Amino acid sequence: MSPSPPPTAAESSAAASGNAAANSLAAPAWPLNPSQPHGLGLPFPGLPFPDGHRLRGCEVAVADLVQTGQLFYQRGWSVGTSSNYSVIIDRQPLELLVTASGMHKGRLRADDFVRINDQGRPVLPDQPKSSAETMLHVVAAQKLPNIGCVLHTHSVWATILGDKFFHRGHVPIHGFEMLKGLDGITTHETNYELRIFENTQDIPVLADEVGRWLDECLAAGGPGPHGYLIRKHGLYTWGKDVAEAQRHIEIYEFLLECVGRQLLMT
Amino acid sequence: MSPSPPPTAAESSAAASGNAAANSLAAPAWPLNPSQPHGLGLPFPGLPFPDGHRLRGCEVAVADLVQTGQLFYQRGWSVGTSSNYSVIIDRQPLELLVTASGMHKGRLRADDFVRINDQGRPVLPDQPKSSAETMLHVVAAQKLPNIGCVLHTHSVWATILGDKFFHRGHVPIHGFEMLKGLDGITTHETNYELRIFENTQDIPVLADEVGRWLDECLAAGGPGPHGYLIRKHGLYTWGKDVAEAQRHIEIYEFLLECVGRQLLMT
Amino acid sequence: MSPSPPPTAAESSAAASGNAAANSLAAPAWPLNPSQPHGLGLPFPGLPFPDGHRLRGCEVAVADLVQTGQLFYQRGWSVGTSSNYSVIIDRQPLELLVTASGMHKGRLRADDFVRINDQGRPVLPDQPKSSAETMLHVVAAQKLPNIGCVLHTHSVWATILGDKFFHRGHVPIHGFEMLKGLDGITTHETNYELRIFENTQDIPVLADEVGRWLDECLAAGGPGPHGYLIRKHGLYTWGKDVAEAQRHIEIYEFLLECVGRQLLMT
Amino acid sequence: MSPSPPPTAAESSAAASGNAAANSLAAPAWPLNPSQPHGLGLPFPGLPFPDGHRLRGCEVAVADLVQTGQLFYQRGWSVGTSSNYSVIIDRQPLELLVTASGMHKGRLRADDFVRINDQGRPVLPDQPKSSAETMLHVVAAQKLPNIGCVLHTHSVWATILGDKFFHRGHVPIHGFEMLKGLDGITTHETNYELRIFENTQDIPVLADEVGRWLDECLAAGGPGPHGYLIRKHGLYTWGKDVAEAQRHIEIYEFLLECVGRQLLMT
Repeated sequence: MSPSPPPTAAESSAAASGNAAANSLAAPAWPLNPSQPHGLGLPFPGLPFPDGHRLRGCEVAVADLVQTGQLFYQRGWSVGTSSNYSVIIDRQPLELLVTASGMHKGRLRADDFVRINDQGRPVLPDQPKSSAETMLHVVAAQKLPNIGCVLHTHSVWATILGDKFFHRGHVPIHGFEMLKGLDGITTHETNYELRIFENTQDIPVLADEVGRWLDECLAAGGPGPHGYLIRKHGLYTWGKDVAEAQRHIEIYEFLLECVGRQLLMT
Repeated sequence: MSPSPPPTAAESSAAASGNAAANSLAAPAWPLNPSQPHGLGLPFPGLPFPDGHRLRGCEVAVADLVQTGQLFYQRGWSVGTSSNYSVIIDRQPLELLVTASGMHKGRLRADDFVRINDQGRPVLPDQPKSSAETMLHVVAAQKLPNIGCVLHTHSVWATILGDKFFHRGHVPIHGFEMLKGLDGITTHETNYELRIFENTQDIPVLADEVGRWLDECLAAGGPGPHGYLIRKHGLYTWGKDVAEAQRHIEIYEFLLECVGRQLLMT
Repeated sequence: MSPSPPPTAAESSAAASGNAAANSLAAPAWPLNPSQPHGLGLPFPGLPFPDGHRLRGCEVAVADLVQTGQLFYQRGWSVGTSSNYSVIIDRQPLELLVTASGMHKGRLRADDFVRINDQGRPVLPDQPKSSAETMLHVVAAQKLPNIGCVLHTHSVWATILGDKFFHRGHVPIHGFEMLKGLDGITTHETNYELRIFENTQDIPVLADEVGRWLDECLAAGGPGPHGYLIRKHGLYTWGKDVAEAQRHIEIYEFLLECVGRQLLMT
Repeated sequence: MSPSPPPTAAESSAAASGNAAANSLAAPAWPLNPSQPHGLGLPFPGLPFPDGHRLRGCEVAVADLVQTGQLFYQRGWSVGTSSNYSVIIDRQPLELLVTASGMHKGRLRADDFVRINDQGRPVLPDQPKSSAETMLHVVAAQKLPNIGCVLHTHSVWATILGDKFFHRGHVPIHGFEMLKGLDGITTHETNYELRIFENTQDIPVLADEVGRWLDECLAAGGPGPHGYLIRKHGLYTWGKDVAEAQRHIEIYEFLLECVGRQLLMT
């Protein structure tokens, strides 16, 4: 496991002070380490972690996911302790940073994360328990070699449309310009189908089912897959980094609201 | 009555300055007193209260409920002077800190709270008048020995669904993953019924009715009860601390919106 | 005309620094002048006005209405340059501080206000033009001797329910606990009727019509009147001070959303 | 090309410090250069650009559009990388500052803008790629000599009402007071028709079609045109400066929500 080196104290201090380069408005004050694949660049006080901390080296992923939680909580997509988020911090062997179980997503702290392996088990001792749905993050990371982040949210529209369209197996999302916000889609003339899985408390079984579906999607070619719904539960999506996964959530939420409100008008 | 000792001035000062430990993002800068059963940990300037102040020792409860009001006002669940909140600050004998009557919940001040006993009467002289619904807080505290906080809100969905389903006696909330956000519920395969009481201005009568229902729930066993609706009025819920009671409000509001929007689509 | 004396520079400075008394959370740092009938108490930098300024002495009213605009803009009740607000700054003779015409309510500046008399005319030279609907503020101030503030907003629900129920002459709002947020209403068992007037660009004619209706209401006795709708236009309400008028807006908006959503469910 | 001179370092510094003149609440601390045709006046750290920067002289336009993105993202009208904004920075020859392609509108940086000419091509080397819809900005600027800003957003209501009313060619918006927020409209007794174009990925063809429609509107006289919809895509509008274009977006969004919710109630 070899996450990128953490920023120096000086970099962190510059970040905390809120200064920005003359050339950048609302710019990432920290971190600007080009070796980091992720990074919304929003500054947080208190980073980097001290030497020897179990999350040392994961500062960027932690900061991005804390900010994701604050944003999605404010939007109403991650209320209470619902939702869970992960960043893939290594692939040889696979290692993910995942939100710990039962944390309020609008008030995540740096310690509310767990480093887990491809079995969903902690790679270090004395970590908090990882989310019950950890294996849904792992299976996405395993099947999709180019992604760097998996986000799972619970919105009202995702919850009820996954039920409304369950008999069809997917939510049909056709002809919207906003579909172009999903990676690889280049025209609104797309007949998009957002897959729906039945909800279950048996996560390993669901993870296997999702894994087979991902295999089928990859074999079929074309853009995506970008995500899926679980009936009366919520939305899973991913992206090459936290920013793209956040964008996919925003795009899906927008499209689901469009579909839901169109249903009411007809 | 013996609330925990307040933080020292130094602790309070550190809190107000916004510093956080290296290990914590968006972390509780104040208070970290482990003897405090509550505590969202959000810092507020001006605390602790000076020696001899009638709310001396209640700093954590005050700070948590002020923050609750700001949050719920922003969500639209506690607009105007609606809603009331309490924290159980002692049980031998029972004593609650309750919001004073008629205060705007988005702009609560430290003085907008009252310390009351198991009769709903002030335990100290010269306090503002407590909320008219104080006895609904007391009865929950009396019947449920493990709770530490009672929250009452007025949302649009709670108001109109309590009317829509009044003839059934409860709002049916079936099969949602988000039900697991209510303490003790471990599967979405739950047929949950959110009890509805008729509204009245005779609070002692309603408090007796709620008390008998709480007795029945406890006798029946199982998770909960977690809360109830009052017809065309609002929602009561509780939790072991302010954080859990806040979470229950968020979960109920999410579920009520799901149920309400599903009604519109069928 | 004799508005209260402005705060001293020292008071203003203390306000701007954000300090609060030890006894108060989120408390009014400025102004605390007990002779001021209004005052949400939110601090603003740059006040008081310098000697000789045309708004010297109106600092509290200006600060309260600027804050009202920011709040209502954020809620979506005063978007664009819609809405107008006033504070009654004197009654012998009548003088109002009114928002200037055409200002964005989310970004009001201190100079975006006009001092006008009982004819709706400026009492000082070189003021910006007052709102086209100034006389609707004046008539409320004239007929209702105990009010201190008039607020007019444009929400979606107020706009469309004023049209939906125009044929009945009022929006029926029956049996809601939240009605108790309107001054003088003490029970949910109230059959409340929110009057609707036809829209017009002839404000003096509408002001006369509103004046006659206010006379009728006062002659009939009982709580209120608290406000009225203009068809496909918006809501007028008032209160003894800015805080109460804000509360009436919040209560009406809540109730109108309840009525509107109930219509969709039946 | 000759944009206005940038503020001096002293002006910029004053802006960043957050100080405001005694006469202004929430006032523009920067820039107050009267030669600038645009300018919401909101301060940003880090400006002005250094000498020789490719956006030197465009500070006001950059700051206004960054703020527009933050505001519209918060409203849900510019989520993900959707939307694009421009300011006309010169007319002899025509030059526009346009958002770069694929940027998140809630987190725009100063470098996320491109200076382009009347062919939609960059006027300087080494700029990021401009938005794919650049020519829709250019055609508005060419046909409408008095505008200074073009804004394009993607809201849910704009997206679905553009589809619902496509067969009529426009959304009918009749009799609303809020229509007076569109430049030149002076009465609610206006039968307003918001034009809808079919969506396409062939922007030059759409730009031609829009151009012919603008010619027709101007030939017909009367207030406007103020904007148009693209089916299942979004809204284009403009104004004499960023503030007016923002207001037009707010007014249209309000009116579309009114029309959409009225449809649900009938």
